[in-house]
Amino acid sequence: MRSKVESQRSEVRSVGRSAVLPEVITLAHGSGGRKMHRLISRVFVRHFGNPMLRRLEDAAEFVVRGQRPGVRGQGSRLALTTDSYVVQPLFFPGGDIGKLAVCGTVNDLAVKGATPKYLSAGFIIGSGFPIEQLDGICRSMARTARKAGVEIVTGDTKVVQTGVRGQGSAVSGQDDFASSPRVLESSNPELYINTSGIGVFEHNHEYDAEHVRAGDKVLINGFIGDHEAAIALARGQFDFRAKLASDCAPLNGLIRDLIRTKAHIRMMRDPTRGGVATTLNEIADAAGLGIVIEESKLPVRPEVHGICELLGMEPVYMANEGKVLVIAAAQNETELVRAMRRNELGKSGTAIGEVVAERKGVWLKTRFGSLRPLLMLEGQQLPRIC
Amino acid sequence: MRSKVESQRSEVRSVGRSAVLPEVITLAHGSGGRKMHRLISRVFVRHFGNPMLRRLEDAAEFVVRGQRPGVRGQGSRLALTTDSYVVQPLFFPGGDIGKLAVCGTVNDLAVKGATPKYLSAGFIIGSGFPIEQLDGICRSMARTARKAGVEIVTGDTKVVQTGVRGQGSAVSGQDDFASSPRVLESSNPELYINTSGIGVFEHNHEYDAEHVRAGDKVLINGFIGDHEAAIALARGQFDFRAKLASDCAPLNGLIRDLIRTKAHIRMMRDPTRGGVATTLNEIADAAGLGIVIEESKLPVRPEVHGICELLGMEPVYMANEGKVLVIAAAQNETELVRAMRRNELGKSGTAIGEVVAERKGVWLKTRFGSLRPLLMLEGQQLPRIC
Repeated sequence: MRSKVESQRSEVRSVGRSAVLPEVITLAHGSGGRKMHRLISRVFVRHFGNPMLRRLEDAAEFVVRGQRPGVRGQGSRLALTTDSYVVQPLFFPGGDIGKLAVCGTVNDLAVKGATPKYLSAGFIIGSGFPIEQLDGICRSMARTARKAGVEIVTGDTKVVQTGVRGQGSAVSGQDDFASSPRVLESSNPELYINTSGIGVFEHNHEYDAEHVRAGDKVLINGFIGDHEAAIALARGQFDFRAKLASDCAPLNGLIRDLIRTKAHIRMMRDPTRGGVATTLNEIADAAGLGIVIEESKLPVRPEVHGICELLGMEPVYMANEGKVLVIAAAQNETELVRAMRRNELGKSGTAIGEVVAERKGVWLKTRFGSLRPLLMLEGQQLPRIC
Repeated sequence: MRSKVESQRSEVRSVGRSAVLPEVITLAHGSGGRKMHRLISRVFVRHFGNPMLRRLEDAAEFVVRGQRPGVRGQGSRLALTTDSYVVQPLFFPGGDIGKLAVCGTVNDLAVKGATPKYLSAGFIIGSGFPIEQLDGICRSMARTARKAGVEIVTGDTKVVQTGVRGQGSAVSGQDDFASSPRVLESSNPELYINTSGIGVFEHNHEYDAEHVRAGDKVLINGFIGDHEAAIALARGQFDFRAKLASDCAPLNGLIRDLIRTKAHIRMMRDPTRGGVATTLNEIADAAGLGIVIEESKLPVRPEVHGICELLGMEPVYMANEGKVLVIAAAQNETELVRAMRRNELGKSGTAIGEVVAERKGVWLKTRFGSLRPLLMLEGQQLPRIC
């Protein structure tokens, strides 16, 4: 146990650290990297702190005990997750904000080993937003939900005033009451969607960093970086043409297939914001071990390489929306890769590296055989990618 | 049963109606009134349609069956709800957006008869938002969660670019990558919070419009309109001073007290957006009955009357964030009012009207004895009140 003095000291240190926080939120706080982690622990975890939240997993896990008419329940193990989606543009090759909002939340539940069941959908809509677009987005959400086998059971709609031409500012606190004539002038109306989801555990396994062991293999179900590269292209800021679509997809079917192999899966995570490198850093940190991935084994499309060069980024930091990282016992590597490849979402599935005891953090074994550290994303990559 | 021709006709009629939908979202679509209901049924329910969503309750109800290690669960009856909060200003007398976000979601679960347990919190933050304010808002959320006995177990943070001085538009799709110098120039950064919540049913009752009977009494736990009036005042647009605070409060404790009386409570609803009149219209519609409320019995503060006169609104349409409408058997009126008044959030609780069979819709019995119809809110009241 720590002495009182020690814990006071560490409190002082942590106050000291929080004093160097930037005073305002910057785009980097939403990037999934180190700045976001720091914000989460120094603001959210500090205030809301409870064991579930402190684990900083993508979904919380708990047992509920309720009754239904006639039957006294004994408790069900559930997972709850939430995500807001602010992607720009709203429509992009391979998907749209609605498809993304369903996939992202389904995947956060699935990687915990839960079966996604029920989703909520909260819409924040800028005045002036075309109803036809909203309709298309909802159709896409419904289609994706059917594909994933989940139901959207409750929702909420809020309308916010969009910036008015010539007024300079964003959503305004100066709402007036005769707004109809003004809202028709609005420019660049926005749409944000929050989806929260409930999943149930249909088995007794727990997938968790504490089960990770040195020697375990790291697998992924296909090409990395497609989502972020497709978003960058869809913004039309580059004089670069490529046939590239977001990998946005619900992964619960694939993950169910992997679980059914009875292989020793230690944990799974979807490498979204911050990409494979950032997610593997989270895993390595939580497991207290190191991870070495091999550059030659990383599935990266030539088009993604090209866009990364233009952006000055690396594929391992690019966001994915249809990928899962699986940490599993070495003896199950072949079986799991085979199971992945039988599923349409895992056709290019492969092992990319392994867990090691001799060094902490994440390392890239380059094509030349050297080891290069892959730190957690510092600052930001593209904003508004999910 | 309707004939095929009849249902085709009604389909044609409904297509005809949907053709007159305005082409863009207006603030009225977020007001809680008739326009919002129309949007919900013609877009959301049409695409996501399932029995739970179609009921248009504030929370969905379902039974989950999961396992926890060692125990095979028999199923738990749960409720799930979601709400996004976009109130302006973020801080107001009686509360702030964080307190509101916890109370609103807790209350949506509580009025269904569920015990609120776990909340998620999704933050959408404009770049440039002061971290100190975010910290204060999270502190307020944590305090309110403790008071309500719920835990915030999972969360999400997204950062969106706020309008940049001189650029005119709101959150921009033209994010650039070297944004740090630009975001410091941002004006009017925003904060939106989504909270979703899970509640469990600890009893076998179902509170629902189908249990409402003619002769039932309508009760409320105190003064109406305080929240919306306080928000209007806090915006400082009126040359009117009044000591008035939002009624924003978690109602699950009060509702638990009411349920424990074993009185015949038919259903409960919290009259938020659209106020008492709009919520009672939803109840009357769902029950297929009428509701008559008595003007002389409605608890309205003189300050709220004053602000309503300035705004040209009526207290029955003003939003509340700490009120519950209870429909209960007439013989339990006294017992329930007494139970309300024993709780600090029900000190001014009272019966305000009753359910009738002889007329549909909602009616106000004026001080002069005449009956005036109270329609569902058309168009909008104040935007950004919750």
